[in-house]
Amino acid sequence: MTNFPRRIALLGSTGSIGRQTLDVVRCFPDHFRIVALAARSNVSLLAQQAREFGAELTACFAETPEIERAAKEALPGVLPGAQGLLEVATHSDVDIVVAATSGLMGLNPTLAAINAGKTIALANKETLVMAGHLVTHAAHRAGVSILPIDSEHSAIWQCLRGENTAEVNRLILTASGGPFRRASLDQLRSVTVEQALAHPTWRMGPKITIDSATLMNKGLEVLEAHWLFDIPYERIDVVVHPESIIHSMVEFVDGSLKMQASLPSMHLPIQDALSYPVRLNTSGTGLVRELRWAEVASLNFETLDMTRFPCFRLAREAAKRGGTYPCVLVGADEEAVALFLAGEIGLLEIAELVEAVLERHHPVAQPDVPTILEVSAWARRATREVYETIYQRNFL
Amino acid sequence: MTNFPRRIALLGSTGSIGRQTLDVVRCFPDHFRIVALAARSNVSLLAQQAREFGAELTACFAETPEIERAAKEALPGVLPGAQGLLEVATHSDVDIVVAATSGLMGLNPTLAAINAGKTIALANKETLVMAGHLVTHAAHRAGVSILPIDSEHSAIWQCLRGENTAEVNRLILTASGGPFRRASLDQLRSVTVEQALAHPTWRMGPKITIDSATLMNKGLEVLEAHWLFDIPYERIDVVVHPESIIHSMVEFVDGSLKMQASLPSMHLPIQDALSYPVRLNTSGTGLVRELRWAEVASLNFETLDMTRFPCFRLAREAAKRGGTYPCVLVGADEEAVALFLAGEIGLLEIAELVEAVLERHHPVAQPDVPTILEVSAWARRATREVYETIYQRNFL
Repeated sequence: MTNFPRRIALLGSTGSIGRQTLDVVRCFPDHFRIVALAARSNVSLLAQQAREFGAELTACFAETPEIERAAKEALPGVLPGAQGLLEVATHSDVDIVVAATSGLMGLNPTLAAINAGKTIALANKETLVMAGHLVTHAAHRAGVSILPIDSEHSAIWQCLRGENTAEVNRLILTASGGPFRRASLDQLRSVTVEQALAHPTWRMGPKITIDSATLMNKGLEVLEAHWLFDIPYERIDVVVHPESIIHSMVEFVDGSLKMQASLPSMHLPIQDALSYPVRLNTSGTGLVRELRWAEVASLNFETLDMTRFPCFRLAREAAKRGGTYPCVLVGADEEAVALFLAGEIGLLEIAELVEAVLERHHPVAQPDVPTILEVSAWARRATREVYETIYQRNFL
Repeated sequence: MTNFPRRIALLGSTGSIGRQTLDVVRCFPDHFRIVALAARSNVSLLAQQAREFGAELTACFAETPEIERAAKEALPGVLPGAQGLLEVATHSDVDIVVAATSGLMGLNPTLAAINAGKTIALANKETLVMAGHLVTHAAHRAGVSILPIDSEHSAIWQCLRGENTAEVNRLILTASGGPFRRASLDQLRSVTVEQALAHPTWRMGPKITIDSATLMNKGLEVLEAHWLFDIPYERIDVVVHPESIIHSMVEFVDGSLKMQASLPSMHLPIQDALSYPVRLNTSGTGLVRELRWAEVASLNFETLDMTRFPCFRLAREAAKRGGTYPCVLVGADEEAVALFLAGEIGLLEIAELVEAVLERHHPVAQPDVPTILEVSAWARRATREVYETIYQRNFL
């Protein structure tokens, strides 16, 4: 697909990736056109975006009846509920669907968009982590591309251009190491929510920021990389690189490594997914600041210490076990992070809760969508239960 | 060209690149076959190589009648002189010509090989620096590829795979900075030959090692990159990177950078040129040691200081002026480096001599081969003259 303008449906338009996607579209009006927008709760922003970009279709997957009412008032034609998301994702005038919702909400619309032959620009991790087998199978059958919107996977994708995947030896994901890269286990035990939300190199939503602090996020990225590039887990490594300049690497069988780099920016992977295989000139747009080597001075690399970051170990284990284990990982982590953000548990207890729930799980191989949704809901409930029985008991 | 085994003619088989080319061929007997070999003075090694690889044809461009006699004794069928080189370079059974001679000796055989439709794996810098316009024009007309054997240019070439050259913003060559990266101008004045021959990251012949110490080599690489990738000089930068792990980078118009990396090894660029577009698995060959990030720890970057490395500035100026200026640069540098290696002048005087000769030059635009050879010979003579008149005078 090299034709412009490309017509875009954006699922999750009011979140961090959604807003940055619109920044890119705003800079390249000749290249991109917003056809449809979908969001969850930020109705006033959704309405403003719909006006600015002249969206034909909007959907609001409202969390409460109040939000649904507000949405109808602000946007007379807005489509409600899950059906609205599906209509946005499969709109006949759309070329590319940007899947930037968080959590499992994106799964059904993404599958529907694939089956409708849309190119998928995928920012939603959970879709591949929990349903990678379904998504890649559907994409293969429909002959559509899944393009990554994530700095690490975009880096690997760029390094693989013009290369033969059969000649890949290893994928090497870089990890900033988050705010607690140098923290001891003891220090990790007493981390505050505020400290965990202060990421050194990336500004993101609260859930993914906590997942970055525990390195659960890097574990999920290993699963994503596996599904996106069809590389076995034992050939996907992670190296800590605190500057977040080199976004990931590919090592080939001849010993050559290719890496992709830039100053930390989500605008770049978004734009690369939207304009592929064309690279658009960003000079003067303010989207991507030029990397000056004299300023960078030094790039550092460290081994990832799994004893201090047990969430990363759990993700790798769940990946190896396969089946519904990754669903449990994601569901339990979501609930555990919510408990951490609410001040109910400490940072290290996120891994403890997730591990306890993984141990209680009876796995299903090759799960279908209803099973995935069911297991995910079970994992959240189980996390609450484990929390209440184990942790609350201590306070009695 | 994806057929194997590929039949190779190797010009300069007894030099550093020549011997490493044969290391690669030795590791992949199913992929590469040596058809013809040519060397200059190391007759016994040439004879040994011819036996080991079963070369059909050998040539010796002997520097003295004694060497020519010795060559005929050791290798009964050896072809003498310039004609021998041409026959090796155009042998009808050959697919790839590896041009690994030093200096201008490679120019005519390389042009002949191009006109005979051979793929060129080019390790000889002078050919492109002095005759880039002739070589690229001939290659374009004959529809043959010039593949770089040089870690920097191989890196750029690898980063450009699957990319559109029109979307390149800058090429960024990395430079180790050589043994005197941190030396002051005063220290540079009193450098010994031994110190200059001790390169921190690369083992190479004496001429190129001195050119690396003065950064003349990096200047010549800028010219090579210009001709190989058709990028204007103002969009070719150099950054000092002492570890020689990242071999060069490409910055695209969208702000994304791609880099290629490995532990310092010439076997890798040689093999990549010979096997392109296939990457061969080197594990177990001992050719390329795996890069382990935990060992690397840190990659550093510095600005190149042209006041301490005037040879680099002279190369950039000669490049911009064009015509026969690059021929004068190369010829004068060869002679000046010989004077330095003989202990006749100091390291900084290499640039002084080269600059004096460049100033005396009356340039010719778009020079043909005879003009290039003539100007080169003039530049060498002029360097001697300048040395004798200016420098010797001080001792009278």
